Amino acid sequence: MAPQHLMVPTKVLHQQMALVFEAWGMPGENTAITADVLSRVDQMGIDSHGITLLPLYDELIRSGRVEPKAQIRIEPSFGATAVIGGGGGLGQVPSVHAMNLAIERARSFGIGAVGVRNSNYHGVAGVYALRAAETGHISLSTSAVYKASVVPTFGREPRLGTNPLTFAAPGRHNRPFLLDMATSTIGISKLELAAREGKRLPEGSALDQEGQPQQNPEQALVDRLMTPLGGSRAMGGHKGYGLAAMVEVLSTLLPGASFAPLRDPDVHRFDVGHFHMTIDPDAFGEPGAFDDDLNAFIDCLHAARPVDVSQPVLVPGDPEHDTFERRSREGVPVPHSLAQAVATIARECGADFLLSQPAE
Amino acid sequence: MAPQHLMVPTKVLHQQMALVFEAWGMPGENTAITADVLSRVDQMGIDSHGITLLPLYDELIRSGRVEPKAQIRIEPSFGATAVIGGGGGLGQVPSVHAMNLAIERARSFGIGAVGVRNSNYHGVAGVYALRAAETGHISLSTSAVYKASVVPTFGREPRLGTNPLTFAAPGRHNRPFLLDMATSTIGISKLELAAREGKRLPEGSALDQEGQPQQNPEQALVDRLMTPLGGSRAMGGHKGYGLAAMVEVLSTLLPGASFAPLRDPDVHRFDVGHFHMTIDPDAFGEPGAFDDDLNAFIDCLHAARPVDVSQPVLVPGDPEHDTFERRSREGVPVPHSLAQAVATIARECGADFLLSQPAE
Repeated sequence: MAPQHLMVPTKVLHQQMALVFEAWGMPGENTAITADVLSRVDQMGIDSHGITLLPLYDELIRSGRVEPKAQIRIEPSFGATAVIGGGGGLGQVPSVHAMNLAIERARSFGIGAVGVRNSNYHGVAGVYALRAAETGHISLSTSAVYKASVVPTFGREPRLGTNPLTFAAPGRHNRPFLLDMATSTIGISKLELAAREGKRLPEGSALDQEGQPQQNPEQALVDRLMTPLGGSRAMGGHKGYGLAAMVEVLSTLLPGASFAPLRDPDVHRFDVGHFHMTIDPDAFGEPGAFDDDLNAFIDCLHAARPVDVSQPVLVPGDPEHDTFERRSREGVPVPHSLAQAVATIARECGADFLLSQPAE
Repeated sequence: MAPQHLMVPTKVLHQQMALVFEAWGMPGENTAITADVLSRVDQMGIDSHGITLLPLYDELIRSGRVEPKAQIRIEPSFGATAVIGGGGGLGQVPSVHAMNLAIERARSFGIGAVGVRNSNYHGVAGVYALRAAETGHISLSTSAVYKASVVPTFGREPRLGTNPLTFAAPGRHNRPFLLDMATSTIGISKLELAAREGKRLPEGSALDQEGQPQQNPEQALVDRLMTPLGGSRAMGGHKGYGLAAMVEVLSTLLPGASFAPLRDPDVHRFDVGHFHMTIDPDAFGEPGAFDDDLNAFIDCLHAARPVDVSQPVLVPGDPEHDTFERRSREGVPVPHSLAQAVATIARECGADFLLSQPAE
C-alpha cells in the first residue's frame, strides 16, 4: 500500500507556509514568525494545529474575518504589564511579541504579564512557553477561542471555549516541563479523530441537547456541547468549568477582547484574546536553585512506580519533546489530501508549491 | 431528637480560637489573623478547614512540627516579587502578609507575586483571594500540602498533594468570582465524608495499590492514592496531573520550600510552600472596564439554560457566598464532638472555653 502521507522536512514546511503568507500580503518578518510557530507545532506532533490550519486561515482571510496585513501595537503599557493589539490578524505574531515583552518585564521586575486583544487563533501556546523556558523563565499562557463549545456545570448551552492553559518551566538537564491542555475533557480535534476512526466518545465527555451524555462523535461535532475537564459533577466537572472560566477572565476580559457569547453578531471580526505571564525564578531565591529543584522534581515524577511496567510515568511535555526530536530527523508527515489543499491555496494566491518534492 | 451540633456566632468562634492561639504562645496580632482566616473559612461553609483543624494544630504544635511562636520575614524582595519565610508556623499569617504585599506590588507594577516557604497549612486560599477581590484585584493562589496523596497518570505511587488552586476576580454588582479547588478528582474531606456516610467513591476517583479503581472510602483513606482531576487518561486525568504538578512548581519549587517526596525524613518540620499572585485589572485598560465586563460575564453564565430547571447554573463562588451570608445570620454549626475536643484543648492550654454558650 502506498503511504497516506508525504514526509516533509520542517525547513520545507516552514518555507511553504512563509511563501503563502507572503502572497497573502502579510508584512515582512510576520511571515517568518507565523511560519516558525506553525512548523514548530507540527514538529511537536500537534497535527491539529499546524499546517493543517492553512485551509481554515485561507477561508478566514477570504471572508474578511482575519486581516493578513495586520500590524500590532502596544497599548497600554504599565510597570510589569502591557496589552498588545493584534490588529485583527492571526495570533502568532502578537503572541510571540507578547511573550518576548513579558520576558523582558520579568527580567526587570521578577514577573511580567502581557495580554493580547483583537487577535485570532495563535496556534499552540506551548511554542511560546518553550521560548520562555529556553530563556530560563517560568510561563503561564492562556487563550480564548472564537466560539463557545463548553457547557457550564448544570447547563446545556455552551458558554466557554475549549480555553487552553499552558504552563512551562526550564528543566536544566531534563527537557522543559510543559503542560499544554484544553480545559475541556477532550478537545475538538479528539472529536474529529473519534469520528474518523468510528469510535465512541468516553461517557461524560460531551452532552446531547437535553444535557445527557453524548457518545456519538459525529453528533457531538454538530451539537458542540463539550463538558469541562472532570466531566460530571461527581468527578469534579465543576472544577474544569471554573478553570475554563478563569482562562476566559485572563484571556478575554483582562485585555479587553470580546467574550464570544456576548459578541455583537454584526461585528465581523472575532476579537480573540490571549494572556502570557512569565516569572524569573532567580528573583525568588539563589540563582540556579530553582533549576536544580525542578530537575530533581522531574526525576522524582519519572521514577514513580507505574501501573504497567511497559508504560512508565511521563512528565508533562514528554510526548511533545519525543515527537519533536523524531520529526527533526524524519520530517513531518503531511497527508496527501492536505498537501493537495495546500497546492490549491498556493496556486490561487500565486505562491510556489514545494510539498511535492520527494521526502528526505 | 436533640441537634447534633451547636450554632455558634462567628464572633464567638473567632474569640475562642484567638484565646487558644494566645495560650499557645502565638505572638500579638497573629492570633487575630489566624482566627480571622479560620472563622471566615467556617462561615464560607468549608467545614473541613475551619475550627475542625484545632485538634490537628494542637497535635502538630505538641509534636514540635509547627512552631506557634513563629515570626515571619521577607527575604528576598525584587521588583514586583518577594518571598516570605513562615518561620515554621501555621500558614495563615505568612499567607495574609503575602497577599497584602502582592496587592501592594500590583498597585505599583500592575502585577505582583509573593511566595511563602517554611510554612504549614494555610487553610483555604479563598479567604486571601476574596481579600484581593475586595481591593479590586484579580488573584491566583496555589498551595502545596505536607504529604503526597495524588498519583501521576500511569503511576501507582503518590507524588503530589491535593494541591489547591484558587482564582478570584472582583464582581462589581455581582459577588466576586471565586474558584477554589483541589487539583485531585475529589479532596481528602470528600473521602472522609463518604466513609462517614457509608457511600462508595465515584469510579476512578481513587486507586488501589495495584493501580486499579478503589471505591471503598475507608481503604482509600488508608492507601491515599487519589487520582488527579479528570481521573482516567481517557477522561483527561493527565491534565489534572499536569495542573497538580504546576501547583507544586509555583508553591514549592519557586519559593524554595520542600517537595514532600524528597523531604529529608530526619527533618521534623514540613516546610510547606504557597504562592500568591495579584493583578490590577486597571493596568490593562480603562479604569472600571474589566469590572463591567466581568459583571456581564457572570450574568451570562448564570443565564445558561440548565439541564434541570430546579438546579440553575452556578458561577464559581456562589455556594461559598450563599453559605457565608446564611451563617453570618445564623452562626456556624459546630458538632458536639468537636466542641468537646475544643473544650479539652482549651482546658489543657489554659484558655477560657466559650462554645458551651447557648446559640443565638
